Amino acid sequence: MTALEQVETPAAVVELARLDRNLERWQEHCDRVGLANRPHVKTHRSVEIARRQLRLGATGITCQKLGEAEVMVDAGIDDVLIPFNLLGASKLARLAALARRARIAVTVDDAALLPGLAEAAVEAGRELGVLVDCDTGLGRTGVRRPDQAAELARQVARVDGLRFDGFLTFPAPDGAVAFLDAAIAGIAQSGLRAGVVSAGGTPPMWSSERLLPTVTEYRAGTYAFHDRATVAAGAAGLDDVALTVHATVVSRPEGGLAILDAGSKALSSDVGPGDGFGLVLEAPRARIERLSEEHAFVELAEGEALALGQRVRVVPNHACVVANLFDELVVAEAGGAIERWPVDARGRSA
Amino acid sequence: MTALEQVETPAAVVELARLDRNLERWQEHCDRVGLANRPHVKTHRSVEIARRQLRLGATGITCQKLGEAEVMVDAGIDDVLIPFNLLGASKLARLAALARRARIAVTVDDAALLPGLAEAAVEAGRELGVLVDCDTGLGRTGVRRPDQAAELARQVARVDGLRFDGFLTFPAPDGAVAFLDAAIAGIAQSGLRAGVVSAGGTPPMWSSERLLPTVTEYRAGTYAFHDRATVAAGAAGLDDVALTVHATVVSRPEGGLAILDAGSKALSSDVGPGDGFGLVLEAPRARIERLSEEHAFVELAEGEALALGQRVRVVPNHACVVANLFDELVVAEAGGAIERWPVDARGRSA
Repeated sequence: MTALEQVETPAAVVELARLDRNLERWQEHCDRVGLANRPHVKTHRSVEIARRQLRLGATGITCQKLGEAEVMVDAGIDDVLIPFNLLGASKLARLAALARRARIAVTVDDAALLPGLAEAAVEAGRELGVLVDCDTGLGRTGVRRPDQAAELARQVARVDGLRFDGFLTFPAPDGAVAFLDAAIAGIAQSGLRAGVVSAGGTPPMWSSERLLPTVTEYRAGTYAFHDRATVAAGAAGLDDVALTVHATVVSRPEGGLAILDAGSKALSSDVGPGDGFGLVLEAPRARIERLSEEHAFVELAEGEALALGQRVRVVPNHACVVANLFDELVVAEAGGAIERWPVDARGRSA
Repeated sequence: MTALEQVETPAAVVELARLDRNLERWQEHCDRVGLANRPHVKTHRSVEIARRQLRLGATGITCQKLGEAEVMVDAGIDDVLIPFNLLGASKLARLAALARRARIAVTVDDAALLPGLAEAAVEAGRELGVLVDCDTGLGRTGVRRPDQAAELARQVARVDGLRFDGFLTFPAPDGAVAFLDAAIAGIAQSGLRAGVVSAGGTPPMWSSERLLPTVTEYRAGTYAFHDRATVAAGAAGLDDVALTVHATVVSRPEGGLAILDAGSKALSSDVGPGDGFGLVLEAPRARIERLSEEHAFVELAEGEALALGQRVRVVPNHACVVANLFDELVVAEAGGAIERWPVDARGRSA
């Protein structure tokens, strides 16, 4: 048995050659088309993977939460975008502490956030970069209209300690470029310039050229691992999926049902593209019809068989929530040798 | 500001008085009707809460995974049921190591599991308790018919090192008692006795008397905290819910939408009873219509208001997956003082 075959299940297993190839191909694409690559570490929450992304040429990283950013800055990473509204005394104190140690930028979608950020910048003794978060159609955070984006940019630029860096959106559906162009035109009248215009998302990553020249920077996360959703979106093939959950068939109570030792505490209950809670590579026509916390219930298709005790690999619906359920990634090298990398920022959602 | 109000969000907050009341009321019920209480620690994965359950009179604990059991036995807990099929060399070696240190029972639903368990018992130098897992209607693990249960019980009893302890089911719908009675009658002919007949589940816990005298032991987990599902099932009122996720309103991009700093990495994406991904106590008619990893999108009802920066408490759909997303529980005492208890077995799904 190889070391990999002896790993206890359930385990989050990363195929190293695929991970590296995913990182390389995307960096090459960004270099070729002229986009700054600022990968989102929320997917892996791993210092080792962030370092690999930076070594290949990423301009910095994206962290969704302060807690993630703290872990990454502790590891020596010095350029971090946190595209999240930060407010409240304790969060702002942590932001100030971070900004003393690294180049930090944040986003805002409301002028009410600016006084707190300005105080954090004063406390840090250092300018804080601020991008204006634009909702270009998804109905998430962000200002809803280009004129609001331009007005908020002007407000940022007037605040001592804050540096207006540009605009940010996620993802970038049809109409996003027109929105961003209008915001840029709006600030030009005030003598302001958007040094960074940041978009993101793995599913449409390979068509990111359509956003040029307006967009200057791209934030993708899932591309490191890929998953059932990004494969369904056409951003990757199944052979590109670098993260699978290895599980064991622990019960075969009736003909067409196989039960795995990986449930919602390993696969998450994120629903995916199409049916079920993941794709069993050893039974690709089967359907994971439900999960309990520690079991997956696999309905086998005609002609498929899974034996009691058999190990299987499950492609998760959504990689980003799966890595966060494990303390470590089991990294598989060619030939079955393994390394273990901690999920350093696991659980750092505050 | 109280210590509780200063806790960083998102946080998993346990109201101590409610937790203790939930534990006490259920133990009193079990004592009154004559059921052994073997609480399921999967809900909290906390040594401190398991100890409180045992101190009140629980007969032992239930762990869904070996990893949970190891944490609990390390903490000195010496009577553990693991209702999970265990197979494979490394799992069986861990089981043997555990069985040397504590009284351990496991379940089986397949005779193919018995040789491995017997070897583990030999290695432990100690008899291993085995219950036969019965599927009484939910289509999960377990043998499907009473005669199969009786036959597997006889097979267990014939294996050196294994001690047939009884039958187990989850939950116990109509017909479960008849199934269990038939299995018990089936083994009586062979001179076997089911010392333990174990059922479980928080939603129907207050009607567990209907299972008497067949059922002797009850496994409930969620009752420690309760959640939106157990409230909807009538097992608790909202005033009994001991675990909430505290979150902060971080964006108010448009009138009826409030966005919280707690997403699927804090609330999980488990769907609940009725609509949405949780209940916001400060806006009880609102609907958490979707989650991203770090945001909850709350559609406010007519007349409801949430302000930027406001702290809110969210009752999760499913408490058991929420505690597992946090490294620690923030335990709130009367008056706003807090303690922090580690989620000791967090992530121990292997």
